[in-house]
Amino acid sequence: MFNQRTKIKALLQTTPIDAKVTVMGWVRTFRNNQFIALNDGSTNLNLQIVVPLGMLGEDILKRITTGASLKIAGTIAKSVGKGQTIELLAENVEILGDCDAEKYPLQPKKHSLEFLREIAHLRFRTNTFGTVFRIRHALAFAIHQFFNERGFIYLHTPIITASDAEGAGEMFRVTTLPFDGTPRNEDGSVNFKEDFFGKSTNLTVSGQLEGELGAMAFSEIYTFGPTFRAENSNTTRHLAEFWMIEPEMAFCDLEDNMNLAEEFIQYIIQYVMKNNADDLAFLDQRLAEEEKQKPANERSEMGLIEKLNFVVNNRFERITYTEAIQILLDSPAYKKKKFKYEVSWGIDMQSEHERYLVEKHFKKPVIVTNYPADIKAFYMRLNDGCEPGKQTVAAMDILAPGIGEIVGGSQREERLEKLLQRMENMHIPVEEMNWYLDTRRFGTVPHAGFGLGFERMVQFVTGMTNIRDVIPFARTPKNCNF
Amino acid sequence: MFNQRTKIKALLQTTPIDAKVTVMGWVRTFRNNQFIALNDGSTNLNLQIVVPLGMLGEDILKRITTGASLKIAGTIAKSVGKGQTIELLAENVEILGDCDAEKYPLQPKKHSLEFLREIAHLRFRTNTFGTVFRIRHALAFAIHQFFNERGFIYLHTPIITASDAEGAGEMFRVTTLPFDGTPRNEDGSVNFKEDFFGKSTNLTVSGQLEGELGAMAFSEIYTFGPTFRAENSNTTRHLAEFWMIEPEMAFCDLEDNMNLAEEFIQYIIQYVMKNNADDLAFLDQRLAEEEKQKPANERSEMGLIEKLNFVVNNRFERITYTEAIQILLDSPAYKKKKFKYEVSWGIDMQSEHERYLVEKHFKKPVIVTNYPADIKAFYMRLNDGCEPGKQTVAAMDILAPGIGEIVGGSQREERLEKLLQRMENMHIPVEEMNWYLDTRRFGTVPHAGFGLGFERMVQFVTGMTNIRDVIPFARTPKNCNF
Repeated sequence: MFNQRTKIKALLQTTPIDAKVTVMGWVRTFRNNQFIALNDGSTNLNLQIVVPLGMLGEDILKRITTGASLKIAGTIAKSVGKGQTIELLAENVEILGDCDAEKYPLQPKKHSLEFLREIAHLRFRTNTFGTVFRIRHALAFAIHQFFNERGFIYLHTPIITASDAEGAGEMFRVTTLPFDGTPRNEDGSVNFKEDFFGKSTNLTVSGQLEGELGAMAFSEIYTFGPTFRAENSNTTRHLAEFWMIEPEMAFCDLEDNMNLAEEFIQYIIQYVMKNNADDLAFLDQRLAEEEKQKPANERSEMGLIEKLNFVVNNRFERITYTEAIQILLDSPAYKKKKFKYEVSWGIDMQSEHERYLVEKHFKKPVIVTNYPADIKAFYMRLNDGCEPGKQTVAAMDILAPGIGEIVGGSQREERLEKLLQRMENMHIPVEEMNWYLDTRRFGTVPHAGFGLGFERMVQFVTGMTNIRDVIPFARTPKNCNF
Repeated sequence: MFNQRTKIKALLQTTPIDAKVTVMGWVRTFRNNQFIALNDGSTNLNLQIVVPLGMLGEDILKRITTGASLKIAGTIAKSVGKGQTIELLAENVEILGDCDAEKYPLQPKKHSLEFLREIAHLRFRTNTFGTVFRIRHALAFAIHQFFNERGFIYLHTPIITASDAEGAGEMFRVTTLPFDGTPRNEDGSVNFKEDFFGKSTNLTVSGQLEGELGAMAFSEIYTFGPTFRAENSNTTRHLAEFWMIEPEMAFCDLEDNMNLAEEFIQYIIQYVMKNNADDLAFLDQRLAEEEKQKPANERSEMGLIEKLNFVVNNRFERITYTEAIQILLDSPAYKKKKFKYEVSWGIDMQSEHERYLVEKHFKKPVIVTNYPADIKAFYMRLNDGCEPGKQTVAAMDILAPGIGEIVGGSQREERLEKLLQRMENMHIPVEEMNWYLDTRRFGTVPHAGFGLGFERMVQFVTGMTNIRDVIPFARTPKNCNF
C-alpha cells in the first residue's frame, strides 16, 4: 500500500503541531537548499518543508527542482517565516520522480495564459489553473447538490441524436460511413440506412426536449452534460464543446422559473465562497493586479469577491423586453449614437445593448422577460393578450455583468393546438416530433425550464476572460489537442 | 406563480393529518368514481385522493382518466383503506391536461419491457421505470458525493478527441465534411485539414489518459461523462453511448486502487439503500415475481435487497489471475467439459469463466488481479519479478454476480523507459502521445485508477437484465430514437 499520506489542505486546516506526517506532492520552488514549497493539488496553498542543513547530500539536493515529485516524512512545527502558520521539519525526503529543469516548460515565474493554453496538459500544475479547476469542481458539485436537495432527478439525455428540430445552431455529424466508397441510394444521395444508427445522426445541441419528457413524469429533472456547436466562431466566448445544465419543471410558470434560476445562481456562488475561500482569494488578488495594468477608466468597479458578494446579496433586476428597449432608447448612449446596432422593438439585442443594461444602467444581473415571438424558439409559450404585431413569448434571459447571457429559459407552450400552429409557421417537421408532441397530448401541464452554460458560470465566478481557460481541454475551430 | 404545491414524497413522509395542501400530478388509476391514485414522480408511491360523491359533475368525472394531469386542493386525513396511512380528501379538483384513454399507450396494466422500450418517451411514467431512473439519479449523486467528500476533483475530459491511442474499440467519426464533394488531397485521400478541427476526430472511448494529466496536478480526480463504442453488438450488455466514471489517483498503487473501488461500490449501494428504500422494495418485489416464472433451478439464490446487503457487508474476494485460472482448471465444470472456451494461462477469460468464479465458486464479488500483459492495455504497470513467459501487469477487474465485469482498473506504468518500450511493442504512435508521456518526464509518480460502467452499476442495483432499460434513451445499432 502506497497511499499513506496527509493531504496538504487537511494539514493546513488542522495545524497539528508536533504531529508526525508523511506528505507527497510536487515541488513548486526550492530556496536556499533549505525551503521546499510543496503542492499536492488539494489546495492552492503550498506546504513549506524545512530541510535541515546537511541532512541531504548534494546529489539529492540538486534533484529537488520545480516539478519534481517528493515523498517527505517529518514533524509539523509552528512557522516563524511569513506567509504560513505551520511548516514541516523534514526527517526523510524521497524523490519519486525527477523533473529536468532544463526541459520543464513550467518555470517558477509568471507564464502568459496563451502559452499555458498550448501546454494545457501541464497547466493544471499552475496556481491559476489549479484554482480555476478546483472552483469548476466545486460549482459542479454545488449544482448537483442544489437539485438533489430539491428532489430533481438527474437525467442523462442523449449525446448522439437524430433530432435536428431545435435549430439551435450548426451540428457535428456522427457517422461510421466511409468517405471513400460511401454507400449511395439509386438517386446518388448518401444511403444513411447503412450508417451505424440507420439514419443521419448528430451531436446534441441541447437536452431540453428530452428533458421535458422526463419532467412530465418526475415533475422536476435536470440535465448536466456536454453539448456541441459546429460554429466557426473563434472568440473568447465560444467553444465547440461545452457543458450545459438544463432544469425542467412541471407545474411551473415563468415567475417560478425566474425564482428558481436566481436562487440557483446564488446558491452555487455561495457554495464556492464557503468552500473555496483560498482559491477565490487568490483569484481576487490576481484580478486586482491585472486591473492595475489597465487605464483607470477601464477598470472594474468591483473586485471579484466584492462582485460575488453583491450578486449573492441582491435580488436580480427583472424587466420586460419592452421595458429594456425603452431604457435603451432613452439612454445617453443611444442619443449620442454610441450603439453600433439599431435599437427598436423586435430586435435581437446585441451584446452592446445587454452590457449597457447590466453594466451601466442597473449595475447588477438583469432578467429580461417576454421577448418577441419572432426571435425565439418554437417551444416557448405564446403570451395571451399581446398588442397586434407585438406577440411575445414567456421567455427569460439572465444577463450577468462581464459575461452577458448566462441563462436562457422560458415557460413552454403546453397547449397542443398553439404549439402545432407555431411549429407549422416555423417549418418544424411535425411528423418527426410526435414523441415530443405526445407530452401535450397526454396529461399536458404548464411547465418551464432554463439552460445555464456551465463554462460561462465558471468564467463569472473565477473572473477568467477567455472561455478556453475554464474548460480542461478546449475544442475550438482547428483545435482539438490532448 | 403556479408552483405552490406539496410533493407527494414529502407528504407521505410527514403525514400532516388535517393539513390543507395542494398537490399536482398524473392519474395512475381512478376507481369507483371516487378514488384517484395520483403520482407526481417524487416517489413510486401514489397518493390516494378521495373525491366526495356528488362533488364533481359527470363531465369532469369522465375526464379523470389514467394519464390526465390534475391539481387538487384538500385536507389530509388518516386512511382507513389498506396500502396507505394517509389520504387526501379533495375539496377542489382542476384538470390541467386531459388524456384520451382510447389513444394513450399506457394502460393501467402490466406492459412488457419490450413494448415500453418502443415508447421510451412515456415509460418514465410507469412504476418500473420511475423507480429505475430515481435510483439512477441517486447513484449518480452518491458518486459525486463520495468523491467530493474525499477531495477528488471532477474533471470534464473531452468528448471529441483526435486521440485514437487507447484502442479500446471502434470509434464514431465526428465531422463537418460533406460526403458529396469531400475535400481531397492531391493523392486522393480525404483532406482533414478542411474538417472543423483541422484533423480527423472521434468520440471518446475513455477519459483516462486525460484524467492522468489531472491526477498529476490535483493528486486525485474523477471523470463522469459519456463514452462511445461503434461496435455492432446487439446484446443486453452493450450500448453505443454509455456513461463512465473514471477516478485516477496519484501516490497510489494497485492495493490502494482495489481498496478505493471496493469502498466506492459499497458506499453508493448503501446510499441507495438508505435514500431509495421504497424504490428498492418495489424492484425487490418485481424481481421476486419474475423469478417465480422461472424453473426452480434457474432462480436466483438471493432477492435483490438481500444481494445488495450481502455486497455491502462482505469484503470482495481478491485473487490473482493465475489463481483464477487454477480454480477454473480444478473445477467440476472444467472436468465435465462444460466450458465452451478453452482454459489455460494467457486466455482472456470469457463470460462463462467469470460467472463460474463469481456465481458458483465464491458466490460474491471477486477482484482478479495481475493479468497477463499480452491481453491488457499499454499503460498498465509491468509487474517486476515475473516468471519467464508469464509477464503480468498490475491490473484489477471487479466481477459482480449477474453482471460480470463492472470495474476495470490498474496501476499505471509510471516509468518512462518501460512505458516507451511497451508502446513500441504494441505499435502505439509515440510521437502523437508526447503530451501523455510528459507526465512521466516531469515529476512522475506511482498512480492508479479504474473505470466503472455506470449503466452496469445501475443494472446491478436495480436488477434490470437489459442495459437498454437503465439509460433514458438507448443508442444501439440501427436505433437512435427520441
